[in-house]
Amino acid sequence: MIAELKELRQLTADENGAQRVAWTDTWLKAREWYATKLADLPVEHHLDAAGNRWVTLAGESEKALLIGGHLDSVPNGGWLDGALGVMSGLEVLRRISKRYDGKPPVTIRLVDWADEEGARFGRSLFGSSAFAGTESIEADRVRTDRDGIRLEDALRRCGIEIDRVREARAEQKNAAAYLELHIEQGPVLESLGLPLGVVLGTKGVERHAITFHGQEAHSGSTPMRMRRDALACAAKLALYIREIAGKHPEAVCTVGSLKTFPGIVTAVVGRCEMTLDQRDLDAAVLASMYAEAQAASARFAAAEGCTVEWSRIWNIEPVPFHPQLLDYCDHAVMETAGQSHRLPSGPLHDAAEVARAGIPTVMMFVQSLKGISHNKIEDTKEEHLELGLEALDKLAAKTMEWIRA
Amino acid sequence: MIAELKELRQLTADENGAQRVAWTDTWLKAREWYATKLADLPVEHHLDAAGNRWVTLAGESEKALLIGGHLDSVPNGGWLDGALGVMSGLEVLRRISKRYDGKPPVTIRLVDWADEEGARFGRSLFGSSAFAGTESIEADRVRTDRDGIRLEDALRRCGIEIDRVREARAEQKNAAAYLELHIEQGPVLESLGLPLGVVLGTKGVERHAITFHGQEAHSGSTPMRMRRDALACAAKLALYIREIAGKHPEAVCTVGSLKTFPGIVTAVVGRCEMTLDQRDLDAAVLASMYAEAQAASARFAAAEGCTVEWSRIWNIEPVPFHPQLLDYCDHAVMETAGQSHRLPSGPLHDAAEVARAGIPTVMMFVQSLKGISHNKIEDTKEEHLELGLEALDKLAAKTMEWIRA
Repeated sequence: MIAELKELRQLTADENGAQRVAWTDTWLKAREWYATKLADLPVEHHLDAAGNRWVTLAGESEKALLIGGHLDSVPNGGWLDGALGVMSGLEVLRRISKRYDGKPPVTIRLVDWADEEGARFGRSLFGSSAFAGTESIEADRVRTDRDGIRLEDALRRCGIEIDRVREARAEQKNAAAYLELHIEQGPVLESLGLPLGVVLGTKGVERHAITFHGQEAHSGSTPMRMRRDALACAAKLALYIREIAGKHPEAVCTVGSLKTFPGIVTAVVGRCEMTLDQRDLDAAVLASMYAEAQAASARFAAAEGCTVEWSRIWNIEPVPFHPQLLDYCDHAVMETAGQSHRLPSGPLHDAAEVARAGIPTVMMFVQSLKGISHNKIEDTKEEHLELGLEALDKLAAKTMEWIRA
Repeated sequence: MIAELKELRQLTADENGAQRVAWTDTWLKAREWYATKLADLPVEHHLDAAGNRWVTLAGESEKALLIGGHLDSVPNGGWLDGALGVMSGLEVLRRISKRYDGKPPVTIRLVDWADEEGARFGRSLFGSSAFAGTESIEADRVRTDRDGIRLEDALRRCGIEIDRVREARAEQKNAAAYLELHIEQGPVLESLGLPLGVVLGTKGVERHAITFHGQEAHSGSTPMRMRRDALACAAKLALYIREIAGKHPEAVCTVGSLKTFPGIVTAVVGRCEMTLDQRDLDAAVLASMYAEAQAASARFAAAEGCTVEWSRIWNIEPVPFHPQLLDYCDHAVMETAGQSHRLPSGPLHDAAEVARAGIPTVMMFVQSLKGISHNKIEDTKEEHLELGLEALDKLAAKTMEWIRA
């Protein structure tokens, strides 16, 4: 698996990192390379209507264990994000095929999701949402990339007809469980000295644009007491969201962007625009954090003689994974690494879409070095990648047994 | 005077405001119009080597009372900023000429400074600094405007040779005092319900660019406790500078620009750039505020696991005006408006350059509506403009007497 991941990197990365952006030539090259790896296996494979590639090893039961990942990357991405899921899944499928002489007790289906990252058209989880029936193709069809190329035309070039995308939902048939191994993309496991972790689910997200309106004024001639400084409101909120998050063990709140207008050295800030991204695995916690930030922003605005407006950029509910599969994953990690840890995923994953479709789902994380991803320096120790593969194999075995039962 | 100010506005403003940017055709048109106003007066007038226009009404003594302002404006500027000084000076000169039958006890010199605003080439107080001998022409000669036109060439088009600019210093000869009437450009007098104020001097300025370096990180996968958030440092400093300023009655501290990098909704801010502008009339206060902000920034950076860098953009020392002239100005305002108020000027003015040359100087402010300037809506009540003219006339009389004595 590691040798194959390196082979893929060799084929699809340049000096700035992985360039497997979905619907580009480099992505197609990665997928062709992947198809060559299937040649010697007793599997059927095809692209579904949304461009997801399905590899099926038929079992005694039609009930299917799904294992997945995505070969697409962000521009200048890492070698493991997504690709680890596909290549570890392939290795587990090979082992199962060998173990059961080509006919396992349940069907094994490996999926390479199309366009998890949404890097080119801004629509992430493209293929998995089509599978789950949560796609938004009517809204997405007007999307263009930075060169003005329409999503529809980019899809057609890859053999996908936009009007048929939602037929990918047919692949849900017989799906009994879904497993995905992924790098953590965060610093938690490394800070705990653990190679592997069990993912509780993907956090819900509330993402908002907040604008404070004050009064632009001359920095030299306007006394402090007569100012209506929009930046002061924003600064208070940027600090207060840390107190809001601090009340909940796994919650995060982030101000990622803050812009000042007119934004010149000699003017009190008349308008300040900021973004707020809040996440938690508990929908009630998320709702309370959102309400608390709104209330605080109104207090800060009033205290500074300013006004505030909120506008939702995006939100998604938390997606908790399946309790029985969480336990199996815990056991598999314990048996492999001696110690386990349960943690939520801040980033979204295709697994969240599969879970939203009602299919029992769990993910396993392998430690990321320095918590860095979406970057050419993204890395994981090779022995940890090996442990991840072993644990995924054990988890797959437990899950097959559960499906059969 | 008011009729003439309106005439000037009619001639040089468009729907966006005054367009008398120095070294442009509209500015030259304003100056030509102004020259026509001098035709019936017993005065000599000429441009000096820096483009300042001097109008001289010879008196019994060669010792000269200088009164000034500037006809140039920012783009989309107001009708009073600068022009009030020139046109009120002209009206006072007319009255003195009439009062003394063309031969006052001391010489009266009216000056229209060239390029106070620095709007086109970024060098404010151009003409007055040449007069004061504080010009920086060697550094300024490489300046270009946004179209790439060199300062040197723009000057030549207006009849000014850059290599001779510093000869403007010769105009200091016999200068005994300098007076300037200007709109406040701030909200203080309006908030006190006063038409006129005595300007204590121009505040010193410390202007810095501050950069906090933290660690860019994924907003979803990075727990709050593991973040090194550069924005948190900047937010703390943006709030703390208000406490620093609050310790001193007239001090101001402003964060006018704050920029976040990478500045996207899903990333903890790895780098934050901000500007800080600090002003006070007392050099010791200014120095202590600067030191306090630096120390605070280092504390905030350390507390957040970040680092901080400072880089000076610009600074200037405070320029207090002349004590005797402050008293005369106070009396003139009292006699005219019944009540006076002393206040420092946050914005710089040509008067600061004149004072730096060792010439006794004072300014008088007339109330600005809403404290707004550098904008087409800049305005002052006409009765206040009239009071300003009366008080300037009285101040000129007192100062002439003082010079003669």
